[in-house]
Amino acid sequence: MEVNSRKWVLASHPQGMPTEDNWKLEEETLSIANDNEVLTRALYLSVDPYMRGAISPQKSYRKGVEVGELMVGGAVAEVIESSHPDWQAGDLLETQYGWREYAVLDPSSATRVTTDLGPIHAWLSYLGMPGITAWCAMKYVGQPKQGETVLISAASGAVGQVAGQVAKASGCRAVAVASSREKLDWCRQLGYDEGVNYRNSENLVEDIGNACPDGIDIYFDNTAGPIHDAAMKNLAMRARVIVVGTISLAGTFEQPDIGERFLREILTARAKVEGFLVFDYLEQYNKARQSLAELAASGQLTFQTDFMDGIESMPTAFLRLLHSSNFGKQMVRTRFAEPFAE
Amino acid sequence: MEVNSRKWVLASHPQGMPTEDNWKLEEETLSIANDNEVLTRALYLSVDPYMRGAISPQKSYRKGVEVGELMVGGAVAEVIESSHPDWQAGDLLETQYGWREYAVLDPSSATRVTTDLGPIHAWLSYLGMPGITAWCAMKYVGQPKQGETVLISAASGAVGQVAGQVAKASGCRAVAVASSREKLDWCRQLGYDEGVNYRNSENLVEDIGNACPDGIDIYFDNTAGPIHDAAMKNLAMRARVIVVGTISLAGTFEQPDIGERFLREILTARAKVEGFLVFDYLEQYNKARQSLAELAASGQLTFQTDFMDGIESMPTAFLRLLHSSNFGKQMVRTRFAEPFAE
Repeated sequence: MEVNSRKWVLASHPQGMPTEDNWKLEEETLSIANDNEVLTRALYLSVDPYMRGAISPQKSYRKGVEVGELMVGGAVAEVIESSHPDWQAGDLLETQYGWREYAVLDPSSATRVTTDLGPIHAWLSYLGMPGITAWCAMKYVGQPKQGETVLISAASGAVGQVAGQVAKASGCRAVAVASSREKLDWCRQLGYDEGVNYRNSENLVEDIGNACPDGIDIYFDNTAGPIHDAAMKNLAMRARVIVVGTISLAGTFEQPDIGERFLREILTARAKVEGFLVFDYLEQYNKARQSLAELAASGQLTFQTDFMDGIESMPTAFLRLLHSSNFGKQMVRTRFAEPFAE
Repeated sequence: MEVNSRKWVLASHPQGMPTEDNWKLEEETLSIANDNEVLTRALYLSVDPYMRGAISPQKSYRKGVEVGELMVGGAVAEVIESSHPDWQAGDLLETQYGWREYAVLDPSSATRVTTDLGPIHAWLSYLGMPGITAWCAMKYVGQPKQGETVLISAASGAVGQVAGQVAKASGCRAVAVASSREKLDWCRQLGYDEGVNYRNSENLVEDIGNACPDGIDIYFDNTAGPIHDAAMKNLAMRARVIVVGTISLAGTFEQPDIGERFLREILTARAKVEGFLVFDYLEQYNKARQSLAELAASGQLTFQTDFMDGIESMPTAFLRLLHSSNFGKQMVRTRFAEPFAE
């Protein structure tokens, strides 16, 4: 079988906040050429904050995307033809796919997607990288104890929603920081005890302080920037600050991040500030996914997804994320997704 | 017995870098008034970086010194009279004494000083708070592994000297940062493998990078400031940054510390930045002291002390420390110390 496909390649590295011009859509023709391959079509494509780092020319924790290369990203895809003995048409997988409609893959490094744990697009959200990030970061770095206060930035985002509900399931008080009243209302429905709208706060240090009167025991930092700064002024003794993402730096990624430093606060509180990357926890993925599926099944985990449609909308969807215009996990569903509808 | 004594009280909170005017010397008359007290005279008085925080009007991890109050500080002192059944004239103790010649104390919270582990003034240095700080911070937070690179700022200071030698005894490569060639030469004699003079470095990031070609596994941060900044640009994967002191902020203590922040570096390296205070490790003090005495006895730990003489010199000695003009542990020996000479 031969298919005509479209893919997004990087057109240029961004200078400051990315724009749609940083990518271009190209066409290609694909077919299986070798044994042990699968021809797949994307059903759901993910956009995630780490992509901002991936298109920067700066060195980071992974090789960046070069100009002219396929843009990176995860997807849930359906096998439509196979030369691999273990895979057949109709099978589903989740993998680093790239922003494209079709792909010929070696499926050996893909995750087999089953339909029993939740909707299949959840393998890009609470059953996938964002959910596993939230679960592992909370469990292994945050180490929440009953009654502790957990502050979460980007609290209604893909990682934040899960982090808040894992905090609640661990017996903690969860405080959300988000960019709108609508998002904070959703956070309360998820079980968050309190919320701070950073966009209409006149004194974020004070507002976070009022929402966390006993101080912050765990700050789940998805953003860096002003929310981080205000959190660092409200640490409880022996606070853990988990550095999970720096999305608020999206527009200044290539420049040094200048502002107040908090070594005195870290010393005084005997706090711990620790960087987290989910790829370090590969061996915990199954355990995390199982636990998240159980939380969802028991009603302790609900999840909001923000869909856009069609491969054409990938850059728009990603930019929505960078501007906090999404509400819940941002995802793109392709024209092939309908039979698997949520 | 009644004694005429002198003591330093805080005359004013400093604005920026402290000066001698921030203290004044007062006289007092002391005698034992109750049971279970000891009248003591100071033999050796310590000056330490934490005192900068103690005289700030800002909130810190301990109650600050108010204007008119006795200045805080540790000392090794000799009992000259006792109404306590367990203590008698000639006994030695180490305690939070204050900057004064004589004191009437309840000895129950003091540490009994013995003469078998090293010179008695070492109870203010490598057998005391600075040494125990270095030992506990390295062992419990740094957790050094054979072959790792340990960078230490203020490397010839009271804490730094011990930290470097504990790193060497743990099989690590120890790299010193100090303010003069003389200090770095001394560090090499202590066993440090490499040294960087931050005062004559034109590019501290590069110079530290060259001294730590595999990156920094443990940064033992006694200073904050530019050395911290350069270290953060040279972290190895899973680096541990132990925030032990912030002496380089002595002149700007009451102002926010503005500069580059390193959340991307922390994330990329999955680094851990952790505040350390020795008072959290009270239960480890004896073990640490024993281990340090053994290192000294076996020749794996040597130590440099910088003495000034007389209670009059306390402010000067402390300011020497703030300006990095001391060479080794800064201490003041009183006119009563001679019989116990080092």
